[in-house]
Amino acid sequence: MSAPTESTKDQRVTQLQEILDSGVLRPAGRLLNSLAPAEIAHLLESLPPARREILWSLVKPEFEGEILVALSDEVRADLVKDLDAAGWLAVTENLDLDDLTDLVQDMPETVVREVMSAFDDQHRKRLEAMLSYSEDTAGGLMNTDTVTIRPEVTLDVVLRYLRRLGEEIPEETDALFVVNRDDEYLGVLPLWKLVSGNPDDTVAEVMSLALKPLRMDMADSEVARYFETHDISSAPVVDERGNLLGRITVDDVVDVIREEGEHQFMGRAGLSEEEDMFAPVLTSTRRRAVWLGINLLTAFLASWVIGQFQETLAKYVALAVLMPIVASMGGIAGSQTLTLAIRGIALGQLTGKNARDLMLKELAVGALNGIIWAIVVGAIAGLWFDSAPIAGLIAVAITINLLFAAFAGALLPLLLKRLGIDPALAGSVLLTTVTDVVGFLAFLGLASLLLI
Amino acid sequence: MSAPTESTKDQRVTQLQEILDSGVLRPAGRLLNSLAPAEIAHLLESLPPARREILWSLVKPEFEGEILVALSDEVRADLVKDLDAAGWLAVTENLDLDDLTDLVQDMPETVVREVMSAFDDQHRKRLEAMLSYSEDTAGGLMNTDTVTIRPEVTLDVVLRYLRRLGEEIPEETDALFVVNRDDEYLGVLPLWKLVSGNPDDTVAEVMSLALKPLRMDMADSEVARYFETHDISSAPVVDERGNLLGRITVDDVVDVIREEGEHQFMGRAGLSEEEDMFAPVLTSTRRRAVWLGINLLTAFLASWVIGQFQETLAKYVALAVLMPIVASMGGIAGSQTLTLAIRGIALGQLTGKNARDLMLKELAVGALNGIIWAIVVGAIAGLWFDSAPIAGLIAVAITINLLFAAFAGALLPLLLKRLGIDPALAGSVLLTTVTDVVGFLAFLGLASLLLI
Repeated sequence: MSAPTESTKDQRVTQLQEILDSGVLRPAGRLLNSLAPAEIAHLLESLPPARREILWSLVKPEFEGEILVALSDEVRADLVKDLDAAGWLAVTENLDLDDLTDLVQDMPETVVREVMSAFDDQHRKRLEAMLSYSEDTAGGLMNTDTVTIRPEVTLDVVLRYLRRLGEEIPEETDALFVVNRDDEYLGVLPLWKLVSGNPDDTVAEVMSLALKPLRMDMADSEVARYFETHDISSAPVVDERGNLLGRITVDDVVDVIREEGEHQFMGRAGLSEEEDMFAPVLTSTRRRAVWLGINLLTAFLASWVIGQFQETLAKYVALAVLMPIVASMGGIAGSQTLTLAIRGIALGQLTGKNARDLMLKELAVGALNGIIWAIVVGAIAGLWFDSAPIAGLIAVAITINLLFAAFAGALLPLLLKRLGIDPALAGSVLLTTVTDVVGFLAFLGLASLLLI
Repeated sequence: MSAPTESTKDQRVTQLQEILDSGVLRPAGRLLNSLAPAEIAHLLESLPPARREILWSLVKPEFEGEILVALSDEVRADLVKDLDAAGWLAVTENLDLDDLTDLVQDMPETVVREVMSAFDDQHRKRLEAMLSYSEDTAGGLMNTDTVTIRPEVTLDVVLRYLRRLGEEIPEETDALFVVNRDDEYLGVLPLWKLVSGNPDDTVAEVMSLALKPLRMDMADSEVARYFETHDISSAPVVDERGNLLGRITVDDVVDVIREEGEHQFMGRAGLSEEEDMFAPVLTSTRRRAVWLGINLLTAFLASWVIGQFQETLAKYVALAVLMPIVASMGGIAGSQTLTLAIRGIALGQLTGKNARDLMLKELAVGALNGIIWAIVVGAIAGLWFDSAPIAGLIAVAITINLLFAAFAGALLPLLLKRLGIDPALAGSVLLTTVTDVVGFLAFLGLASLLLI
């Protein structure tokens, strides 16, 4: 009687996709509702609009809320756009408070009021409090379903208390929080310490003080780093007076880390981490057009620089043939430094303090690679066009551009960060501007001075 | 008596950095050893080599092992390069088995044998078994310190058993695994169910069957996705016969997710996610040179294409001025599609099944943006050079290049994936090749046909 291992899950998803492709929907519904909400969300995200609608219509209403919470913002907004007040009430009926707060942004205000009016006073106050925290802070990540105990009671009393709570104990509770009469946070009692400790010991004797509570206004990226460096699976959240507000569980932190990674990766191409792979064509076109427009400015700037040297180019066409190489080598080298710097900033490992060290190192690397590739490219170009001056020119231009690329790659992200601009989004466009302009200017400018 | 909140940690780190900068080392040591091992690792990674050595020399020997485990591969390799056998034995003395396996790759073989000879038979067999799993599988991620129980005993008996175990219960245990006499995995008993359940119920009545065990050969990225979709903090690992081998805890999964994100982000620039920000200049230069060399081939290919049209260029210098715009617009548009596709593949949301849907959508977006920007760029170029033919030429070339960019951006990553090549690493170079070559060919080729 061994339980089936996890490979069976993927088979169900594949099976489901085949059924959807075949168009016979009855068995799909049954299979679908045997999956976890997050699995269904994952599947919905991977389907083009038409089949996404079909799958969504097969989901049992009682699962809809949890699936919506697990979806990326864009896909969620798409699926709820036709939901009326009654639909919203049904969807939100069984949700935890922290999940509900995630959905509120998509709900019409009248619906929010209606949902709230169904709550008792305490529940409503809690929800209002949670809505007051920004989504990207500890307060926005936390859940309020904590079990609290007093420091002076014995473990035996705690065990009896939990047994009385029975089914009411929140799922996935892994620790109890110790508070005094004023609800001030004092420490944490992990369940493994509770069950392995001496029943006659008091909570105060056994509780752990090592885990510091997080302030409700701590940024979510800092929360994630705290979880990572302390290898914990939940943490208490307190207000500015040290009063316990709730707890953050690691599953929400995992989402933050995933999104941080995607933000950096997608931002580089001007895309949002919430981007729906199958967004409507017009929506996608509009968003991409903005990014293309910004980059077009860069491209025209580079063209304008080239335009200053039309005479030289008309005389030495070889320059036109070779000039993309100078710009491209600079762009590649610069983007390596930029990538390293953006990661360093995101991890909190690159600050004003060690920026000089990174800059010096990157300049040294740029100088060495500049010399190496100046020789290689110079030799090839010289042989190709049978011209020593052109060989010398491109060699010097490449060295100059690789040095500027290292400088800009290390400096730009820190500068942008200080200006409050996201380096992951703007860094790459600006860097290309620098390496294109410097590359063309050095190569064509030197040529105009020396060849003519 | 409220506990200090988490902001105090960052103060300690800042303080430490200031002390290091000032050169007075005694207080630094005390402060340092009050940090968590992962915090020290994080700090070491952010220091340039000289100060990194100093900080490392201040670390208490008993913390060194855990810090090494938390470091990125490159920084770790740097710090242990002078460690002798005695040093290694001291470092590895207090480590858990799963941490030890992470370090074995850096240890000289003689040291590995010496460490193993200090173990008892059971311990050694376990270590050998764990070393036999690849690092990027469930087996490589797991820990073997599980607490197992039988299904037929009552909760009361389990509680008494845990109390007898006392301190021996593994830290951070959040669930007990239920196995039969043959060690086959049957289910899981989370501690919160144990403490809230009726003491007279048997384990079999209370245990959860919803959590499927993971096969030891499951890829780590799949393990991560399983943890994410099921919001769990630990999972059992079994062998092909369903026998329990160990458990994976979420802190190790968090590292996998962080590394996956960094791999995509860094790979785009030809960097490894393990890259040390302060790697030695010569090491960095060598690695970057490889990437620059690969990209140089691309650049020369583009140059060669341009070289085919030297006559045309000599006659119409405007073409040389404008040609980077055509290539750049294609590169930007293509990289957006590529980024979307690489993320889709990494998340398992883009497969052969829906590739056609993505391709059609991206081609439509490419066509629309192609037309929009063809008009804009055509108008500007026409006015700039006062030439209707040039306006028409660049408009057509941009439309062609944006369509090709969408096609290549969607197709390349899937093709690379099928060939077993990492799309995050190779995708961007190949895409640039396509958009450069197509851009220059379309623009200059059409010009040669129509203008001359």
